[in-house]
Amino acid sequence: MSHAEVDDLVQRARAGQSRALGRLISLVEDASPRLRDVAAELTPHTGHARVIGLTGPPGVGKSTSTSALVTALRAQGRTVGVLAVDPSSPFSGGALLGDRVRMQDHALDPGVFIRSMATRGHLGGLAWATPQALRVLDAAGFDVILVETVGVGQSEVDVISLADTTLVLLAPGMGDGIQAAKAGILEVADVFVVNKADREGTDQTVRELKHMISLGRREKEGPSWRPPIVRTVASRAEGMTELVAAVDEHHDWMREHGELSARRRRRAASEVEAIAVEELRGRLGDVRGGSALVDLADRVLAGRTDPYTAADELVAGLRPRR
Amino acid sequence: MSHAEVDDLVQRARAGQSRALGRLISLVEDASPRLRDVAAELTPHTGHARVIGLTGPPGVGKSTSTSALVTALRAQGRTVGVLAVDPSSPFSGGALLGDRVRMQDHALDPGVFIRSMATRGHLGGLAWATPQALRVLDAAGFDVILVETVGVGQSEVDVISLADTTLVLLAPGMGDGIQAAKAGILEVADVFVVNKADREGTDQTVRELKHMISLGRREKEGPSWRPPIVRTVASRAEGMTELVAAVDEHHDWMREHGELSARRRRRAASEVEAIAVEELRGRLGDVRGGSALVDLADRVLAGRTDPYTAADELVAGLRPRR
Repeated sequence: MSHAEVDDLVQRARAGQSRALGRLISLVEDASPRLRDVAAELTPHTGHARVIGLTGPPGVGKSTSTSALVTALRAQGRTVGVLAVDPSSPFSGGALLGDRVRMQDHALDPGVFIRSMATRGHLGGLAWATPQALRVLDAAGFDVILVETVGVGQSEVDVISLADTTLVLLAPGMGDGIQAAKAGILEVADVFVVNKADREGTDQTVRELKHMISLGRREKEGPSWRPPIVRTVASRAEGMTELVAAVDEHHDWMREHGELSARRRRRAASEVEAIAVEELRGRLGDVRGGSALVDLADRVLAGRTDPYTAADELVAGLRPRR
Repeated sequence: MSHAEVDDLVQRARAGQSRALGRLISLVEDASPRLRDVAAELTPHTGHARVIGLTGPPGVGKSTSTSALVTALRAQGRTVGVLAVDPSSPFSGGALLGDRVRMQDHALDPGVFIRSMATRGHLGGLAWATPQALRVLDAAGFDVILVETVGVGQSEVDVISLADTTLVLLAPGMGDGIQAAKAGILEVADVFVVNKADREGTDQTVRELKHMISLGRREKEGPSWRPPIVRTVASRAEGMTELVAAVDEHHDWMREHGELSARRRRRAASEVEAIAVEELRGRLGDVRGGSALVDLADRVLAGRTDPYTAADELVAGLRPRR
């Protein structure tokens, strides 16, 4: 792909053409060397979109909730980009098929763009790819970008926590999980959503969440955001107005308290760092034409050196010795 | 902790003291600076253990299967270390509590060591921590190490695929998921386990798996391992003898075809690379006392530079300019 073709693609993506948008995100998936040009052209046009992360354990209704949120945001006239991250996990395929069916409600709406993104095989993984895909959607002018993680692994949660606002979905009857994992959930959640709130056990789940939130607050100093708990039944679009209101309230709070720019700075720093780390990883793989790492691995296997000393030697190989 | 204390800890771990083993794995979780000493002392004593990875979607019976496998291996007189990776995910806490209960069957057996490992917060994550924890258990002399991933995210699957033998667990009635994700599963599975094989739909799941495996084989050249499918009912310890036999058969096949050393070389290379990358990530964070990354992030946010150019500048900062 020539520089002129990249230029054309970026112009068409910014004009709202979904196919061009889709191709740009494919470049991210493929870790294309053209991304450097893409990023240079996109960056001046970014910073408008609100990025909302949405995560939660399997079966909690993430895709149904995403779809219902899209509908609620569209009703307010806001345009929405949806990025479903890491369908590449061997186990999320089934859920993804389900997503696509639900998402068909929005297929004919030009104000909505939906895309799943696979990053499997690229070492930098989600931390490298997600901010770059967000940059594409941001530059394309969407008012809101929803990032949904299909998996529940470590990298997925790390990435979702880079959103402006992170929604953590739970469903009634998951009390044990909440108790055991409260530290982890407290860290990433800006808004808790108890979905399937027409089911038995909803009150108890809300009560446990409240208790957990109050414990978390005592440990913090200064003004801090208290994550609200919104009850929804996404399959019937119940509670979505309240959910959008909670997200907007969090956004306003962050803007007032300087937290919005702090978070976006963290996201940008994380993006820059991930690109730099991948550049260095590539160079490590090239030390002595790639033979250095193989030789060092063999020496570690034979017990002749330890992995830390081997890593030192690999890093030292980055610089030509004088 | 002094060098002498590390030395003592390593000696006691190698003598089979669980508390010392546990403390060494805590050092890995905490990314302790002492790991360099630990690795230097452990490395000469490694290479004995067979590493078996065990993964699969939630609800498939991973911990029950792990526990049943431990029992079957112990019946043959083999010692077993179990490493449950990434209970740090906000959502795996519930499952973990369940694990612990099931694992209590083995609590009094000195030939079994069970430990869960959390790595959340350390950027190198599972790719950095898991091989180092395996090294601890390997040097302690266990015949078999079972690595179980609780999550189903990208990093979890990447890590489990570094085992000598990877078991992918499925359960009847997951046909859609298998179809959609066949490429990903084929990649990592050495042995398929259809657990809960007393349930309806088992034959269909086995049939679909067979079809998938036959498709995968056509694409490969040379002698290749055909992943067997073992039916189990782990809760009643059914099929475990067959499962252990399949794992041993895979091990023998790898040894005959040079694949065992190739895999272990990949694991060692991945460990060395992960340590080197983390060293470089640390240095990137220190460029201009940490202010470089913050400044660059601000410039990206303001649209004055793009993340690739910023990353170049950060990497250039690693070397003193002349």
